[in-house]
This record gives sequence, structure tokens and C-alpha cells, in this order.
Amino acid sequence: MRLLDVEDLDAITLGATLLGNGGGGDPYQAKLMAHQAIEDFGAVELVSLDELPDDALIVSIAVLGAPTVLIEKIPSGQLYVDAVKSLASYLGKEIAAIIPVEVGGMNTLVPLMVAAELGLPCLDADGMRRAFPQIEMTVFTLAGISASPVALADEHGNTVIVVANSNATAEKLIRSSSMNLGLANSFASYPMTIAEAKGAAIRGSLTYCENIGRMLQQIQHGTKSWDDMYEMTGGRTLFEGKIVDLDRRTTSGFARGTVVIEKFTDQSTTMRIEIQNEMLLAIENGKTVLTPPDLICMVDHETAEPITTEQLAYGQRVRVIGMPCAPEWHRDGMLEVAGPQAFGYDVDYVEFNGGTA
Amino acid sequence: MRLLDVEDLDAITLGATLLGNGGGGDPYQAKLMAHQAIEDFGAVELVSLDELPDDALIVSIAVLGAPTVLIEKIPSGQLYVDAVKSLASYLGKEIAAIIPVEVGGMNTLVPLMVAAELGLPCLDADGMRRAFPQIEMTVFTLAGISASPVALADEHGNTVIVVANSNATAEKLIRSSSMNLGLANSFASYPMTIAEAKGAAIRGSLTYCENIGRMLQQIQHGTKSWDDMYEMTGGRTLFEGKIVDLDRRTTSGFARGTVVIEKFTDQSTTMRIEIQNEMLLAIENGKTVLTPPDLICMVDHETAEPITTEQLAYGQRVRVIGMPCAPEWHRDGMLEVAGPQAFGYDVDYVEFNGGTA
Repeated sequence: MRLLDVEDLDAITLGATLLGNGGGGDPYQAKLMAHQAIEDFGAVELVSLDELPDDALIVSIAVLGAPTVLIEKIPSGQLYVDAVKSLASYLGKEIAAIIPVEVGGMNTLVPLMVAAELGLPCLDADGMRRAFPQIEMTVFTLAGISASPVALADEHGNTVIVVANSNATAEKLIRSSSMNLGLANSFASYPMTIAEAKGAAIRGSLTYCENIGRMLQQIQHGTKSWDDMYEMTGGRTLFEGKIVDLDRRTTSGFARGTVVIEKFTDQSTTMRIEIQNEMLLAIENGKTVLTPPDLICMVDHETAEPITTEQLAYGQRVRVIGMPCAPEWHRDGMLEVAGPQAFGYDVDYVEFNGGTA
Repeated sequence: MRLLDVEDLDAITLGATLLGNGGGGDPYQAKLMAHQAIEDFGAVELVSLDELPDDALIVSIAVLGAPTVLIEKIPSGQLYVDAVKSLASYLGKEIAAIIPVEVGGMNTLVPLMVAAELGLPCLDADGMRRAFPQIEMTVFTLAGISASPVALADEHGNTVIVVANSNATAEKLIRSSSMNLGLANSFASYPMTIAEAKGAAIRGSLTYCENIGRMLQQIQHGTKSWDDMYEMTGGRTLFEGKIVDLDRRTTSGFARGTVVIEKFTDQSTTMRIEIQNEMLLAIENGKTVLTPPDLICMVDHETAEPITTEQLAYGQRVRVIGMPCAPEWHRDGMLEVAGPQAFGYDVDYVEFNGGTA
């Protein structure tokens, strides 16, 4: 166990922005909310799965919505606690700890805020160690853990509880409800015991995220290099260039888009990146070079500041980074749950090539 | 209290078809299901609101879906009991009786089936005494009774519980969930105490429906006339003619349509009827003559058999009947909840003119 206090939030936020793969919502406002909660209620105990009894019940809490809506308005107030309490009440059980569903994007910070508000520990573990656009796209699903019951809440006291016989159906039902409730909601999901989490969750995710954030701070200050980052993460630079084309649209509650980048050193070489909330597919001169669940991250080429898909702009000079997904993803069913075809892309999974790692 | 047995179902089914206003699903298959349940579990106690203690909890149970889907497939099996049990479990309380949400269409019979299966009495009361396409269109809403929590269930074990801060929001959330679950679902709603129901519900609805069914049987056998029916109900014949135009479509989970009828005795006089699951608006030569919540019913001109909107056909010879809504509708808020503008029609409510009654 260690205490996460307000001074730890900057590195976690920076790491979460990079691990958000351009999506997952902007963690900055979520950081302000977590900051306030920790000031009001005290530091959060970050615990490992081994520090709680096997039969303890844990749940995740997160924001659900379209990035294009969330950038205008991050839901604040009671709805996070409402969702957790609705779920606990539905289950008729006490919640022992919060587990992030994704460490990447704003949903890295939301669990810390809620843990502070409820006086509960937060687990140093999660279900993605990146951001993904859909609820069922977790290593929990691979381990056969049900996302249901899921409790969705809005700012006006509306609540929807979904008990679905598959996590994909839970996603559909929660998504359509959220579309009716303004696409800026909280949801509590994946109630499970510590014993279940031990066989399913990605361990150490928040610490990993914080380490990435600190490394990125040092790169920004010139005291570390990208090679140091790649040694730590197994990643590599996929592409360095200038954005020359950009297409974005919001459909069915998702922010979809395509960005094309032209190589600095060779204008005939381009990389196209396909977006569904997150950057999912990297294609260099027509050849797919990176596929989910491996990570595509983007930073400003000069400042090393992570870029979310909403911040993408024509002419921007960027570094595209590839990183291997958490090893816990490499289980039976990975491609069905989070491979390129799970997003409707008719391409095969490309084994991640660590390059300099 | 009286016992409803299998031999009572024919008259109730016929009455329910007429009170379905062309929609509400075809009661015939629901009758078969209720018949089976009564054979398996015994006759249903039909009770009045005065026969149960004031603090007893009652809930409604009904089918939700698009008529165009339900005509292909009426959901059968566990999902009705599932929805009631989910709601009871969510509330943490015992259910004392079932109350129909609408007496009109298949949802007249479904409560009898579920009451038989659960061994509970069914109340001789309801929230519409006709069929309406949306959950919030009840006299319960007029009395300030919440439809929430609503439990929606499908045949595959999926359940959604909605706790909404308005009945209109509950409708939207349940509708979108149902669209994701195939538009052939059960829903348990309007949990309330007997004391609440006493100040809200339409009393005697099932008996009224059964009496209409028996009267219609006698009209069909030539032993009673339409004047007898109108004396009992306060209704009148609105129009007699031949269908000359018909337009139907399913949009957003509703069956919408328009039917035009040409008068037998005067081909220059036509009646246009606007449909949203139910027949809602009757317009004669451009003049609106009947508006919701008053009732438009249609029968075959020769056989006096009620016609549902799915059975409408070009050339059909029909009698269009107007009937006044239950007096319990005439409370503050009636037009907001179930007047023509609640359906998006830009016309004023027309006071029902009973004619021969």
C-alpha cells in the first residue's frame, strides 16, 4: 500500500494522456476533480490485489460518453458516487475497493476521485492499461468476468442498471441509454471479487502509468530520451512527420476519424491512422504496421506533449509512438475482443515489433 | 373478488382487441398464453382495489415492442416472470398483486397470464382502458406516480432496470433498450401501493373490457345492435366506408401509418386516420373529429370483427367507432400526457361528442 496524494496527480495525468491513445477523454479536468476530492477527503490508498481478502467485492467506475461531448462538458457531481451506490445496492453488498476499468484517459483519474470520496482504497490494476471505446474491451472479458450488472447514472438522478448475458450486449444497452442521457455519464461495472481479479486484471497499471508520466516529464525537460522511454515500455517511434489530412465525425456516439501524416524526411511516405475515439490502426504507405490492442500514442514533435484526437490539427508536427499492450492481453480471445476486426477493420493483427526495446 | 377462468378469456380477448384501437398487439396469441397459464396454475382472482390492504405493493407487467415485430413473434417464456421478479428484487419487497398498465391489446391478457403463473391476484383496474404506444401515457402519470423503477427483460436473460426522474425519460430509456433487445420484450413498471392506485387507477377496466367483448359477440350473432354498444360505452359510429389508401412504416420502434376511408353513401367524403401503433386521429374531410385520449376503434363492416392496423387492407369495408376515454383521464395534465400534441400532431383536443349515447 502507498498513499496517492495531490502531488502524484500530475505524473499520473500525463501518463494517462499518453496511454489514452488520443482518446479516453482529456484527463486534465478529471485531474482537477480528483485533486479536489483528495483535498476534501484525504489521500487515496493505492493497494495491490494481494492486500485485500479474496472474497472482497470491487467495482470499477468510469465516465462514458463521446469524446466530442466530453470535451465540452465533463460530468461532475453526485453521478459517480450514485452509480457505485446503485450498483452496491443492487448487489446488496459492501464495496471494498475501486478498480479502474481503463488506465488511459480520464478514467484513470475518475476512480481516484471516487475512491477518495467514498473513503475506499483504489487498486493498482485495471482492465486495459490503455483506453478503448467499448465497455467489453477488457482483459476482464477475456477471463470470463461479466461487466454486469452495470449501473449508469447522469447528473439529474436518472439511473439505468443493465444485467446482460454478454459484455457486448451490456455495452450496447449502456451505450444506447447514455445516448438518451446526453452522452456524458458515469457507469459502475465489472463487480468482481479480489479472487476473480487476481486471475484477470492487469497488475500495477497505475504505477506503470505514473512511471510513464514521470519519464515523459523528464523527456520534456531534456533529462531523459525517447530511448529511455522505449527501454521501459518496449515501445518505439513509428513515424515522425506533419499532419497533411484530417477527417473527423461523430456517429452513433463514437468519434471516428482519419489522420494522414507525411514523413519529415521523405514526402512520399505517409502514415494513415484510423480513429474510433482512440487511435487504433497505423498504416504506412498502405501497409498496416500497428493494430489493437497494441498502442498508438502521439506527441507534439517539439514539446513531447501528448496529443488527443480532439487536438489534432492540420500542419501539426508529431511523433507517433507504438507501444506493446499489457502482456495480460495475450490470452485466448484477444482478437475477438480487441483485435482490429473487433473494430470492423478488415485487417489481420500485426505482431508488435519493439524495435529499439 | 371473482375468479377469471379459461372460459372468460374469449370475451376479454375480443373486448381487448376493440379497446386496442388497432394497436396494442394482437391479443389472440396472448390469450393462448393466458389460457395455458390458467390451465397449469389455476384460475386468476380478479380483485378490486378495495379488497387489498392500502400498503400492499402492486406492479404492472406488459409486452413492449413494435406491433410490426410482435406480429411475427410474441415473446414467450420466462421473460414476464423475470421482469416482475427483477423489479421485486430491486425493490426488496413482495408483490401482492398485478395491475394491467393498459386494458386494450395483448397487454390485457399478459397480466392474467403472469398473475396465474405467480399465484397472485390481478386487479380489475388499469392505467389507460385503451392502448397507447408509450409507457408514460397513463392516468398513473397524471396522478404523479412514477413508472420507475421499470424492469425490462428479454428471452435471453438480459434485464435492464431504469430509475428515471420522469416517466417520459423512463419511456425513452426503456424504448432504446428494447430496440437493442429486439423490440419484443416484457417490462414490469409502475410499482405502487394500493393506496396510491386508489387515487390514480381506472377502476373496473377488465370488467368493462369483458362486457364490451360480450356485447360485440352478441352484435356478431345479431342479438344486439351497435346502439346497445353505444348505450353502454357512450360511443358512436364515426364513419362507414371503404379503405382507399394506406401507408405504413416502422420508424424508431413505432408503427406509423395513415389510412384513408371513402364513405359508402358519398364518395366525396373521406376520413383519414393517423396511426402511431394505435389509431389516434380521425379527420373527416379535413376536419379533426376525434383526438386522443378518446378512442378510435375499427371493425369489419359485415362481421363486426375488430381490425388491427396490421390487418388493414385496401378495399376493406369498415365501421369506424369513436368512444370516450375513461373519465379518469379528465384530470389536470391530460393533454400534455395523451392529447394530440403529445403525439406531435398540431391540432387541438376535440371534446368527444357521444351522439346516440
